[in-house]
Amino acid sequence: MKRLTDPQEIMEKSKKYNLHSWSAQKKLSPKVITRAEGIYFWDGDGKRYYDMSSQLVNMNIGHGNKKVIAAIQEQAEKLPFISPACAIDVRSQVAEMIIDVAPDNMGKVFFTLAGAEANENAIKIAKMVTGRHKIFSRYRSYHGATYGAANLTGEPRRYTCEPGIPGFIKFFDPYIYQAPIRFENEEAATAYYLARLREQILYEGRDQIAAIVLESVTGSNGGIIPPKGYMQGVRDLCTEFGIMMVCDEVMAGWGRTGEWFAIDNYHVQPDMITFAKGITCGYVPLGGVIVSREIADHFDENVLYCGLTYSGHPMGCAAGIATLGVYKELNLIARAKERGVLLGNILEDLREKHPCVGEVRYIGLFSAIELVKDRATHEPIVPYGSDPHKIMPRILGMLMARGFSTYTHENCIMIAPPLIITEKELKDAMAIMDEVLTEVDAMI
Amino acid sequence: MKRLTDPQEIMEKSKKYNLHSWSAQKKLSPKVITRAEGIYFWDGDGKRYYDMSSQLVNMNIGHGNKKVIAAIQEQAEKLPFISPACAIDVRSQVAEMIIDVAPDNMGKVFFTLAGAEANENAIKIAKMVTGRHKIFSRYRSYHGATYGAANLTGEPRRYTCEPGIPGFIKFFDPYIYQAPIRFENEEAATAYYLARLREQILYEGRDQIAAIVLESVTGSNGGIIPPKGYMQGVRDLCTEFGIMMVCDEVMAGWGRTGEWFAIDNYHVQPDMITFAKGITCGYVPLGGVIVSREIADHFDENVLYCGLTYSGHPMGCAAGIATLGVYKELNLIARAKERGVLLGNILEDLREKHPCVGEVRYIGLFSAIELVKDRATHEPIVPYGSDPHKIMPRILGMLMARGFSTYTHENCIMIAPPLIITEKELKDAMAIMDEVLTEVDAMI
Repeated sequence: MKRLTDPQEIMEKSKKYNLHSWSAQKKLSPKVITRAEGIYFWDGDGKRYYDMSSQLVNMNIGHGNKKVIAAIQEQAEKLPFISPACAIDVRSQVAEMIIDVAPDNMGKVFFTLAGAEANENAIKIAKMVTGRHKIFSRYRSYHGATYGAANLTGEPRRYTCEPGIPGFIKFFDPYIYQAPIRFENEEAATAYYLARLREQILYEGRDQIAAIVLESVTGSNGGIIPPKGYMQGVRDLCTEFGIMMVCDEVMAGWGRTGEWFAIDNYHVQPDMITFAKGITCGYVPLGGVIVSREIADHFDENVLYCGLTYSGHPMGCAAGIATLGVYKELNLIARAKERGVLLGNILEDLREKHPCVGEVRYIGLFSAIELVKDRATHEPIVPYGSDPHKIMPRILGMLMARGFSTYTHENCIMIAPPLIITEKELKDAMAIMDEVLTEVDAMI
Repeated sequence: MKRLTDPQEIMEKSKKYNLHSWSAQKKLSPKVITRAEGIYFWDGDGKRYYDMSSQLVNMNIGHGNKKVIAAIQEQAEKLPFISPACAIDVRSQVAEMIIDVAPDNMGKVFFTLAGAEANENAIKIAKMVTGRHKIFSRYRSYHGATYGAANLTGEPRRYTCEPGIPGFIKFFDPYIYQAPIRFENEEAATAYYLARLREQILYEGRDQIAAIVLESVTGSNGGIIPPKGYMQGVRDLCTEFGIMMVCDEVMAGWGRTGEWFAIDNYHVQPDMITFAKGITCGYVPLGGVIVSREIADHFDENVLYCGLTYSGHPMGCAAGIATLGVYKELNLIARAKERGVLLGNILEDLREKHPCVGEVRYIGLFSAIELVKDRATHEPIVPYGSDPHKIMPRILGMLMARGFSTYTHENCIMIAPPLIITEKELKDAMAIMDEVLTEVDAMI
């Protein structure tokens, strides 16, 4: 089959035959990408971009890693697919490797293809284990776009999956910067949010709730980092009421925050961790649910009513083994923590310098810049769910034009480069951000 | 990373670290598979199996196809992943190739990773296009195990996704063999089922229903083939009431029934087709929704609220291009039709010969044998949803022991070999089935 090579033809056929995500199609002019290597990718005109969001916060080890590519090529030759009912080398091995780096209480892995399905299955498992049907999750969260995952989601990408599923309940996340209360300190915020959550549990029925699902660090919805003691507090509430604590680590896992899992920053053991993205960095799709030994034991005698044709897909498992090898070999977990200090310093400098920056939030190489009209009132640069003057797309366009690729969400800019980024690369890229923020200052 | 090689160790680690689908885990002893080629695979003891279900009805081109493997290896080297927002060669090209073989009214493709997500997105698209929220689907159907797909599903694999989503309505499929009415002929059955469906549409609200989702040929739930005129009748009802007709071709598509899509057998044009499996045969995951030009046009100006990180994954797209090439090069669509005649003849002979066979249903290389206690009353060999004496697992075990691999569902045995199967291989494999059915005759 002759491959398309002309960038113009690739773009036209993409517009003619592909439906693109989260967009009206007519005005799109999707960038034609022909090559990617390390922290960079190149468009059809040969222009180079810093990949400062690691694509969709998945490309942790960077593009074009030779070891992962070789592992994929080898598995394709050996056994690209066999039913999930079978035992195969790579499926056993990647699960063992995952359990090795997961919190100590974890026992087994159920594999999916990506994050939405991971969350879908975590909900089902929580319901099966507890015999309860209510599911708590938070506003300002994203858990995926299938019905169950979308009903967990606390933002507009949920709306097409409504009327909602009975028993899916939302609570407020500790988004302190925009809270209607100004807290004295983190501890005061933690106490407030936990007390509210406890109250909500009691009103909804202490013995009715199967799971609390939350991102260990909120991703696209603003890089919201739990205040001191919050995650332990949620753990304690879950333990008190027999609720399964499910941490969504689809974005935050696999070294992104400077630990294998973001929850490790808080020394908390959830009952389940959902993952995808960084386990293979997207070289081949893979996701899943890590469950505690206690949950695993439950399914010794009880049927696990979960399944999909491509559960534990051999290609994904082989890529996962190789990717985990790369994290270890290049010491990327520690490196993310170390580079995160530099990124944090740069971000704090930007906040000092630019009136348009309300807050910067960062942990490891996972960060967001929150843009405001007014630092005194915290008024966002665009109102929630509305950007009639296309301010955020304009800002993104200014970054992209200078070769800084990332994405924005509401009034925030995400910054989450590949964990392999060097100090120099990080400084050079963030100098572009500095330039653009100067222009944004002039806009407000 | 050293790979596991000892079959015993692979099995033990699989039991220790993997959660296996649709099972209680303790008594499992998953078969260790080390090699697959053409229509065969081999277990850890070197025993060979005819793959008579094409794994989970996905391996249409057979195992180990060199062209698909080469395409995967090449794409891994070139660009294994880039965001779905970009235009890339393989994503444009595979979409064009799909539209080329799809029914004439089709316009664009939204890519997912697999079938459940394809159905999830079809529901969302139907709701967006029509502005309505009710979704019709059928009992005795399987559409996937995520919340939306499971709520479409009309069998017990739905139960963990209940309480159900408001507005998801079930109607009866034309399962004539076990219907409480004995119809004089196919036409009478069609008239009955369409009249009932029409009545249900009226009671549920003619202007409330966004979509009717149905398998063009029902897969695991018994290989149920629509009677004459049924699919056209559903099309006419959809047109009359402005309902989107969504054909789930996750199993039935890509040549399985002797046409590119099963709906082509009935010369009917649905509004959407959902697909997965055969598009890549599972070498790399890929699925999606094919939408009509009319629907595609709707999203020129309206935002498509669908998205996933791995939409149009480059590896899946590359595998899809190569797989479509294999179908064409080996003329597999016509070959499935031709071999289907032989399979049909063999199945009819088995029905003649074995009292345990109530009915055989077949189209192309997609077929099921329905086992009964009594051919006069049609009483199933095991009651629905219950098999306390493990009769069906015993029958499956007898087949597997003789090297005939497939799966059963309720009282049916699926037979859906790779489309590359030769006449001799088909006859040899079905001779095993003949032997086993003789033993089953003695059991009833």
